[in-house]
Amino acid sequence: MSQPSSSRLPHVVVLGAGFGGLRFAQDFDSRRARVTVVDRQNHHLFQPLLYQVATAGLAAPDIAQPIRSLLKHKPNLEVRLAEVTGIDLAQRRVHLDRGELSYDYLVIALGGRTTYFGRPEWEQHAPGIKSLDDAMRVRREVLLAYERAEREDDPVRRRDLMTTVVVGGGPTGVELAGSLAELARKVMRRDFDRIDPREARIILVEGSDAVLGAFPPDLAASARRQLEKMGVEVRTGVRVTDLRRGEVHIGDEVLRAGTVLWGAGVGAAAVTQSLGIALDRAGRIPVNPDLSVPGHSDVFAVGDLTTLKDANGQIVPGVAQGAIQGAAFVADVLNRSLQSGVPSDPARRPAFAYRDKGNMATIGRRAAIAQIGRIHLQGLPAWLAWLALHLFFLVGFRNRLSVLLQWTYSYFSYKRGARIIMGMDQRGSPAESLVAAQKISVQE
Amino acid sequence: MSQPSSSRLPHVVVLGAGFGGLRFAQDFDSRRARVTVVDRQNHHLFQPLLYQVATAGLAAPDIAQPIRSLLKHKPNLEVRLAEVTGIDLAQRRVHLDRGELSYDYLVIALGGRTTYFGRPEWEQHAPGIKSLDDAMRVRREVLLAYERAEREDDPVRRRDLMTTVVVGGGPTGVELAGSLAELARKVMRRDFDRIDPREARIILVEGSDAVLGAFPPDLAASARRQLEKMGVEVRTGVRVTDLRRGEVHIGDEVLRAGTVLWGAGVGAAAVTQSLGIALDRAGRIPVNPDLSVPGHSDVFAVGDLTTLKDANGQIVPGVAQGAIQGAAFVADVLNRSLQSGVPSDPARRPAFAYRDKGNMATIGRRAAIAQIGRIHLQGLPAWLAWLALHLFFLVGFRNRLSVLLQWTYSYFSYKRGARIIMGMDQRGSPAESLVAAQKISVQE
Repeated sequence: MSQPSSSRLPHVVVLGAGFGGLRFAQDFDSRRARVTVVDRQNHHLFQPLLYQVATAGLAAPDIAQPIRSLLKHKPNLEVRLAEVTGIDLAQRRVHLDRGELSYDYLVIALGGRTTYFGRPEWEQHAPGIKSLDDAMRVRREVLLAYERAEREDDPVRRRDLMTTVVVGGGPTGVELAGSLAELARKVMRRDFDRIDPREARIILVEGSDAVLGAFPPDLAASARRQLEKMGVEVRTGVRVTDLRRGEVHIGDEVLRAGTVLWGAGVGAAAVTQSLGIALDRAGRIPVNPDLSVPGHSDVFAVGDLTTLKDANGQIVPGVAQGAIQGAAFVADVLNRSLQSGVPSDPARRPAFAYRDKGNMATIGRRAAIAQIGRIHLQGLPAWLAWLALHLFFLVGFRNRLSVLLQWTYSYFSYKRGARIIMGMDQRGSPAESLVAAQKISVQE
Repeated sequence: MSQPSSSRLPHVVVLGAGFGGLRFAQDFDSRRARVTVVDRQNHHLFQPLLYQVATAGLAAPDIAQPIRSLLKHKPNLEVRLAEVTGIDLAQRRVHLDRGELSYDYLVIALGGRTTYFGRPEWEQHAPGIKSLDDAMRVRREVLLAYERAEREDDPVRRRDLMTTVVVGGGPTGVELAGSLAELARKVMRRDFDRIDPREARIILVEGSDAVLGAFPPDLAASARRQLEKMGVEVRTGVRVTDLRRGEVHIGDEVLRAGTVLWGAGVGAAAVTQSLGIALDRAGRIPVNPDLSVPGHSDVFAVGDLTTLKDANGQIVPGVAQGAIQGAAFVADVLNRSLQSGVPSDPARRPAFAYRDKGNMATIGRRAAIAQIGRIHLQGLPAWLAWLALHLFFLVGFRNRLSVLLQWTYSYFSYKRGARIIMGMDQRGSPAESLVAAQKISVQE
């Protein structure tokens, strides 16, 4: 790629290289503009499989691809590794942790973040998974809890250490709970000398009446049965009232656990607060039908940090497809405008219409649910559909091959290749919250 | 595995599950003893490929296997995740960071550690690679240096950031330098917009007159030629006199660099200091011909923390084969003794004889040297031999398949699958030494 020949070209700034930002950058015709893609990580992450990294089924590089590498064929496009600290709509500027960028068009695709029902102090005791670092932290804490149980003499404490509580019965919580049950009961069953991991308790706590409540009731009920069959204790209709180290309070009851994981509350990336516009309760931007930000026709937002009833009156769900379709729509709007050479007239832009391609959630080996139009699948057929779709959409040929290999291997061997604890050398990292008692330091 | 039925069985404690400790545990007949294997990591690491994790060619789990999983078929064997803090030979006790163990027989196989010629303060500016965490740190620092160069406006500073100095011309230094040259000049060549990674400088600094000086002169000279052909600047006969952030002083000259890596000085694990016996300058134990520790016939040591002229008057080299053969020898001595039921008489034990199976070092794609008996190979044939051998010895079927896949893929595509920066979320970790100037924090 060469330096853009003319800095007179309009500057399109894309914030975030997740599903939305990447799709925009790929679909946008960058010959008629300068494009800068900003992300705080150097990689695009295939989030739907992040729970597999957390539960030692996949290696981190299997689900990530360098952003530079994905976009290197695009002319006039620059990738910037930086964190967005604020957006100044009036001045048309984006503030970064290092420097700032001015834009002619802005696409905000920074995604969501884990929220703790207004209790940010809970985070240190119950990590969520949004990044590879989060996933590695969860993997380490889960595996270390069993190591601690193995050397614990007190049977009560041992049982506590072998208990994992997952808060939140949405897709992330369900995937984590199912995968953790398999890890303990199948993968690690014979690895220890003093403890029997088959006695591990995995408790899934959900505030509403059903897990995977976004699915039709028959599928949600099926998901619960499949979870219970795998040994997960499902507790619905219970709210977390307090959370301390190794303790989850639900009403008057206290669940003691070696590991507590957070699969609940998803809000918008915090940077939306800097926009100075009205947001919904979760901090999401109530975008216009053309996905522009209210009052700013050259600023668009897509994905998890937006909220919208689309052209068909349907609420666009906070899933990958919502971000991807929104980003493709915005790229199309801008391509047309730049091709014609006249600024796009917001009043004449089409309205975004979300196309529901179906929805699926996996629970474990041969356990999943799927809704594709009127077709409801559960168990093995749903799981096969899930496998095929995730392999298909995983970015990068190498990753597809590698993940296929890992899955095939673990399907037949009941082993997980990534059962490796890393990051023990980093003293004082947040990862140590649950293991603070047991100093693990660098061997000198 | 069940709890050992009788605690009357002699207790064999194995410190370390590297090449030596693992081989001992596998070869030792654990039906006649209780065995405890202690390691501060939960995984056995295939160290010869660690540089590939550091240079983004392989994922961490590709070269690691859970120790529990590798040893779960052994009866009466317990694995303990703990750090050895001291050994009390008089009391026959091992002190751990949590608790202690008493032993009847002890096998010390804790390996080596990176040393800095008596200048421990250099470590923060020039990481070595001994663990997966080290490798991840190096990967992050190398990739971040190019990211910093990309946004640097000053051409002098940009050139500095695109310079990597590798200290030490042994196998680790040579592998790192060759792999880094390929990463910059081939893999990343078209990834950036403002910088051209083909202009990157990789400088290999070695104090003696040759790189890979342990090899015959013709092969060492060939290694140098192969490195230079790949664009590595090889500086032999120069000693590092000082090392600061981004600066390597060699005599009066100062090399400025974005990344400095340490492939030199290897000493024994520090715990040898606690033995209270005479050690060599590098802290290594001068073991008896039967690999027992002087004055303690029930305590054995194998691998990098020992020094020995074997039965043939040959110095046992500090390579994987030295540890593996030594461990097999000790397992055999103890197996015989426990089988016969009478304590082994040190005076009648055989002397260990190291069998030289050859030696090889890789430099890059189709570049390596190998010595197998009187056969000297270089270039493609040496590289193919290296590939075959490393695939063959890599522990675990899944890892072999996965590594084969990654290598095949990157051979044909010139891409590296693991070009993923992780660990940016850990503020204040040692990894931040080189990037302290540029705050990279958690996006809220």
